[in-house]
Amino acid sequence: MPRVADHDARHGQITDAVQRLIVRHGLAAVTVARTAAEAGMSVGLVQHYFTAKDEMLLATFTRVNGRFTARVDELVNRGEAEGRTIAEMLRQALAELVPLDDARRAEFLVRLAFADRAAHNARLAAVQRETLVGIRSRVAQAIDNGTACGEVAQGIDAADQALQIVAFTEGLALHAHIDPDGTPKPAILAALDGRLGRVFTGTCRHTQPG
Amino acid sequence: MPRVADHDARHGQITDAVQRLIVRHGLAAVTVARTAAEAGMSVGLVQHYFTAKDEMLLATFTRVNGRFTARVDELVNRGEAEGRTIAEMLRQALAELVPLDDARRAEFLVRLAFADRAAHNARLAAVQRETLVGIRSRVAQAIDNGTACGEVAQGIDAADQALQIVAFTEGLALHAHIDPDGTPKPAILAALDGRLGRVFTGTCRHTQPG
Repeated sequence: MPRVADHDARHGQITDAVQRLIVRHGLAAVTVARTAAEAGMSVGLVQHYFTAKDEMLLATFTRVNGRFTARVDELVNRGEAEGRTIAEMLRQALAELVPLDDARRAEFLVRLAFADRAAHNARLAAVQRETLVGIRSRVAQAIDNGTACGEVAQGIDAADQALQIVAFTEGLALHAHIDPDGTPKPAILAALDGRLGRVFTGTCRHTQPG
Repeated sequence: MPRVADHDARHGQITDAVQRLIVRHGLAAVTVARTAAEAGMSVGLVQHYFTAKDEMLLATFTRVNGRFTARVDELVNRGEAEGRTIAEMLRQALAELVPLDDARRAEFLVRLAFADRAAHNARLAAVQRETLVGIRSRVAQAIDNGTACGEVAQGIDAADQALQIVAFTEGLALHAHIDPDGTPKPAILAALDGRLGRVFTGTCRHTQPG
């Protein structure tokens, strides 16, 4: 009875094919026929899983966002196991939003393509907003954790700082994409460090020796 | 002999029509036929001015960017005439990048649409990069002017700060678009003020009384 597993696997093959097409040619070039060819399936099989192109795009966007979130969670878990500071974990997590290598560039291009499309599609806009709110609330939680453990000074407005930090990161990501030569990787990481350093000014009591 | 004036007027009518279509339906919906209908012209007349859709898009993007730059220059000229501080003029200029009203939202949607498209079109990418570099260098110039007159402390790296300030503004713009309720106008203006306030910490000697 491998039906559920098959279904999930096919679903993933199709949305991965959509992502590759977006990275290579842009969202405008995505059609059901091209997606089927890219995924090595028949058009009929793709249509069995997604009745319309919009459904296929929504599934792709949801999957890319889910993968990002899972990667950040993994980073945080590993960071906690290794006793990293909250600021370090946050810096690593935020750097995942910036097109600093091929994998992150592929994700960035998908987010960018959908940012345009979502301006005229309510369901895509909802996924986009939920993703953004989710990222911001994770950053706000990290700041609150920092306040509790001493890495962040008392009285910092976590929600406001989270909004500013995430907006800054996405702006850097956009500039790294538009003008990679003028926005080198070390400058981006230093800018993120500097921005976090204005909020994370203390030392966590839990990790302090003695 | 009104040929040149006619040409410019037609050109503007066509690119304005493209902009309206992008705002209303997205870049994917733009065709030569729809643009002709929106501009109230024949398809043949549009094709007389633009031999291909890509030419029409490039002209629209160039025009929107040019209009933004002209508006910022006007703001700065007026601000100088009124004796505003450099920080105030810069805040106003940066706020032009954020979708805070219908006019700025229309421009933002066009920039967003082209940001996606430019990822797969070298000529659009070049216009996009030039525009970004132009904005950054204007902000860097404003910081240098601030250093000369006393509004900015000595030793500030103008290029680095300009990069960070523009990236932050564009990130805020993206968030104001994706999640307007979570990014209200006062919060955006306060965030811009706060960011500029970290660089513009002094008072201009020219405008100081006494």
